[in-house]
Amino acid sequence: MPQAFPSGVLNRRVVLAKRPEPFVARLADDIFSFDSVPVPVLQEGQVLVQNHWLGLDPSTRGAMSASASYAKPTPLGEPPRAFGAGIVVQSLDPSFAVGDRVSGFFGFQEYAVLDAKVLRPVPAAAPLRASISLLGINGLTAWIGLNDICKPKTGDTVVVTAAAGAVGSVVVQLAVAAGARVIGVAGSQEKCDFLRKLGAAGTINYKTDDLDQALAGLCPDGINCVFDNVGGKQLDTLLLHIAVGARLCLCGLISRYEGAPVGLENWSRILYMRATMRGFIFLDDPALMKAAETDLLDRLLKGQIIFREEIIEGLQNAPRALEKLFDGSNTGRLLIKVCPDAA
Amino acid sequence: MPQAFPSGVLNRRVVLAKRPEPFVARLADDIFSFDSVPVPVLQEGQVLVQNHWLGLDPSTRGAMSASASYAKPTPLGEPPRAFGAGIVVQSLDPSFAVGDRVSGFFGFQEYAVLDAKVLRPVPAAAPLRASISLLGINGLTAWIGLNDICKPKTGDTVVVTAAAGAVGSVVVQLAVAAGARVIGVAGSQEKCDFLRKLGAAGTINYKTDDLDQALAGLCPDGINCVFDNVGGKQLDTLLLHIAVGARLCLCGLISRYEGAPVGLENWSRILYMRATMRGFIFLDDPALMKAAETDLLDRLLKGQIIFREEIIEGLQNAPRALEKLFDGSNTGRLLIKVCPDAA
Repeated sequence: MPQAFPSGVLNRRVVLAKRPEPFVARLADDIFSFDSVPVPVLQEGQVLVQNHWLGLDPSTRGAMSASASYAKPTPLGEPPRAFGAGIVVQSLDPSFAVGDRVSGFFGFQEYAVLDAKVLRPVPAAAPLRASISLLGINGLTAWIGLNDICKPKTGDTVVVTAAAGAVGSVVVQLAVAAGARVIGVAGSQEKCDFLRKLGAAGTINYKTDDLDQALAGLCPDGINCVFDNVGGKQLDTLLLHIAVGARLCLCGLISRYEGAPVGLENWSRILYMRATMRGFIFLDDPALMKAAETDLLDRLLKGQIIFREEIIEGLQNAPRALEKLFDGSNTGRLLIKVCPDAA
Repeated sequence: MPQAFPSGVLNRRVVLAKRPEPFVARLADDIFSFDSVPVPVLQEGQVLVQNHWLGLDPSTRGAMSASASYAKPTPLGEPPRAFGAGIVVQSLDPSFAVGDRVSGFFGFQEYAVLDAKVLRPVPAAAPLRASISLLGINGLTAWIGLNDICKPKTGDTVVVTAAAGAVGSVVVQLAVAAGARVIGVAGSQEKCDFLRKLGAAGTINYKTDDLDQALAGLCPDGINCVFDNVGGKQLDTLLLHIAVGARLCLCGLISRYEGAPVGLENWSRILYMRATMRGFIFLDDPALMKAAETDLLDRLLKGQIIFREEIIEGLQNAPRALEKLFDGSNTGRLLIKVCPDAA
């Protein structure tokens, strides 16, 4: 018999009041509003979760647009979609009990009601917040894109864009561990220094270096694998340097927030170099997710992986923090500490 | 002991005198010249072949440019690169004997000297000229691209561009045989009628129909597989209609002869629809080539496949025939009958 959740507890939320201007990092003040609503009564098969941590991803911003790229747009008046990690506080499903640690799409709010079947249990040995970062969207995306699409072989040249980010930095370390020669592209000297620490053989600061010339110098035999988080002009320039049989993983499109979308002028290189370009999201294949989680947890517990986090206190600061994903100012996984007790 | 080839026989050739203007179907009269040179003396490991049939492909024209897309550019003063089928007339290699039927890159000339290791034997049951069409570049390209990249499942919607061509028409028939719903895109009513005969469920005449609207009507659930021979605007429009998990095979770029190259504006659909786009050439994987040849020969002998040929008599007519590949006027595999005895 599940423990009853005290009635009268309010759920504080950040909700979408209007849709943001496309292609602009800055979010106007009136895009969000704040409210408090009663915690809903559970239905059979549902679970009530207290949200401890929220992760901010580019897809959160994407879903706020009327023409969302992946999932349906976030309805106006509802909390923006985002991964959360928390503790079960009430359950009407036999697969979860009060006190269980879980992750899922909790959104910008303190409490979330979800169907039990869309919740993921957090591995016992893992820190709670890792379930929405290294063992969640960031790490799983890095692992699956690299191992299922890029498939680097020993000695391959792997180029990673947004390489110092929460996904890119994991890709760099996994590719180095696989014996590849890794070139990281990032937007500051500090980020390039960090990439060196992760084992990158070369780095390119796209804000100060000429990407085309730098690639010509660093990849004289061509690029075998591309892990791209940026799209647009960076991806287009990378295409000029791919080797025969290259594998390109399309993971993100941060560049669309820098202005109107940019076409790929050099796409015919995919044809002539017999390359493979593939898009993916980490949620598509449960078997790959499990393999990635197991391997990354093992590396984490052995201290073999460096993962930077930027922690922001308080749900009320989530909206402004979203901008950091697109203006290049954040360093590491952006997490919101929603519950003061979160560990 | 190989039979000696009569000395004093001249090799009539069509050679590249200057490079053609890029992106123009029409070839100026002074691009080619004609000559006759002695047949070279063989080295150990080489074979002399009398060229019976030449096949004309877009890649022949591609290699005539200074910036060839696949192989090295055809040197000035040499015959343009093209597949030929013929009979061994002299051999200094134990793997071939006089009278053997072979195919290879013979080029625009009556006799070719090749290393034995780059020659392919023609299957005994096959017509000689089929070795450079249905059982050569066209059929093998269709089979490998469809089966190794597009991988259509029963009920999948497959869209083929330049669908009535020597490659596209084989793709259409193989995809229909695999249980797919096939939509063919071509440039005339006659070609669309032909596609219906091959089993296409729908056809689009890109010269008279609006491709975007036509695809919306014919593919309401999205396109699962694209076999593209055209590139440019047609491919870009197809991207707007792909389904989640679509597989796109990049086979050719006929559109580059219609004007300057066109960028892909809608490439981010590959990301969002988790699609795979891959370029290939049929020569990359000998095991796939063998599997394709075996299956296509079986279908040919059982009368299960329709393959149109347009045969042009005489090597001297090869240059002008090349234009037909790019102005849309040819219907079926373009073959030059080089030797009057060819069968």
